[in-house]
Amino acid sequence: MSKVAQYQLDEYYYHYPAVASVVTSHADGKNNAMAVAWHTAISRKSPIYGVAISPKRFTHGLIVASGEFVVNFVPWEKRELVAKVGGCSGSEVEKFLAFGIVTASGKVVQAPVLADAYAAYECRVMERRAMGDHDLFMGSIVALHWDKEALSKDSMLDPGQAHPVLYLGGDYYATAKGNVLLDRAALAKGTAGPMR
Amino acid sequence: MSKVAQYQLDEYYYHYPAVASVVTSHADGKNNAMAVAWHTAISRKSPIYGVAISPKRFTHGLIVASGEFVVNFVPWEKRELVAKVGGCSGSEVEKFLAFGIVTASGKVVQAPVLADAYAAYECRVMERRAMGDHDLFMGSIVALHWDKEALSKDSMLDPGQAHPVLYLGGDYYATAKGNVLLDRAALAKGTAGPMR
Repeated sequence: MSKVAQYQLDEYYYHYPAVASVVTSHADGKNNAMAVAWHTAISRKSPIYGVAISPKRFTHGLIVASGEFVVNFVPWEKRELVAKVGGCSGSEVEKFLAFGIVTASGKVVQAPVLADAYAAYECRVMERRAMGDHDLFMGSIVALHWDKEALSKDSMLDPGQAHPVLYLGGDYYATAKGNVLLDRAALAKGTAGPMR
Repeated sequence: MSKVAQYQLDEYYYHYPAVASVVTSHADGKNNAMAVAWHTAISRKSPIYGVAISPKRFTHGLIVASGEFVVNFVPWEKRELVAKVGGCSGSEVEKFLAFGIVTASGKVVQAPVLADAYAAYECRVMERRAMGDHDLFMGSIVALHWDKEALSKDSMLDPGQAHPVLYLGGDYYATAKGNVLLDRAALAKGTAGPMR
């Protein structure tokens, strides 16, 4: 192992892979979709989800205007859709038309849900917090969409059934493999069997 | 496809997989390590990284007391380490001792860097924001550690060389596979070749 330590770096990719989600928005009669890899769950009871979006993005204005967004999760088979919406701006391209993106109505918000998504979270903005060169939008999850067939019996994504699009940075992508049970409590207690 | 829509759900796993990071902390002579899947980059220029941690966690108190944390990324080969630190509390177990965790000094902060990590971000808390049942700690990245051998020539993680630990929810884990180039700009313009 040859390790390197740095004190400053503006381009840090080491936390990847992250699911390349597609964030959709709607305001003033316009729809947009952008690829977002900077997102995370924040709270479980009151479900809250966060997405970090640069004020330079067309999506940013739509979310500020509407106070709403949808985080869509699309399968590996549709990875080119993620790359396409990530490769141009809604200020220049009406992406839904240009790329033939099929949508479904959200249950609560006006922003569209992608028909190709295996899951989607409809969110209402609770707070927008400027941090460095991005704004973090923290949204209350007001509706969930998910494809039963993409889930294992434990209600979790099964990489054997649904193949997420993982972003590696730059123009590189990967997907997930495996579905390994690690009994955390038993491992911590030293009572687990040999590594599976 | 059989889709389901719900208006409320306290357990939502559909955004997974997410890298199961190990967040380390240090205060009052105590170290701790916990598994955190709710984390994201927030800003590039001023590098800022966010981790969502419940106030119930032992780590929470250490981060509040010290104003510092480290986000460590460990390889699939060390997945049991992630599961172990995720399977017990630092209020009951001195995890570094119990699990024989090898550490290196941080360059800037007091919280330990894991010797087994292929990358780590040292962070200083800029802001702690209570959101629902978690606190979101937004940290200025003050030092980066990374293993040259885990990176591709483009300075990105190469799943062919470093195998991240991805969390699926519950006690389930996966890793990443593939390293596919999708030329976003060319795909958006319709000038890309056939799907690779």
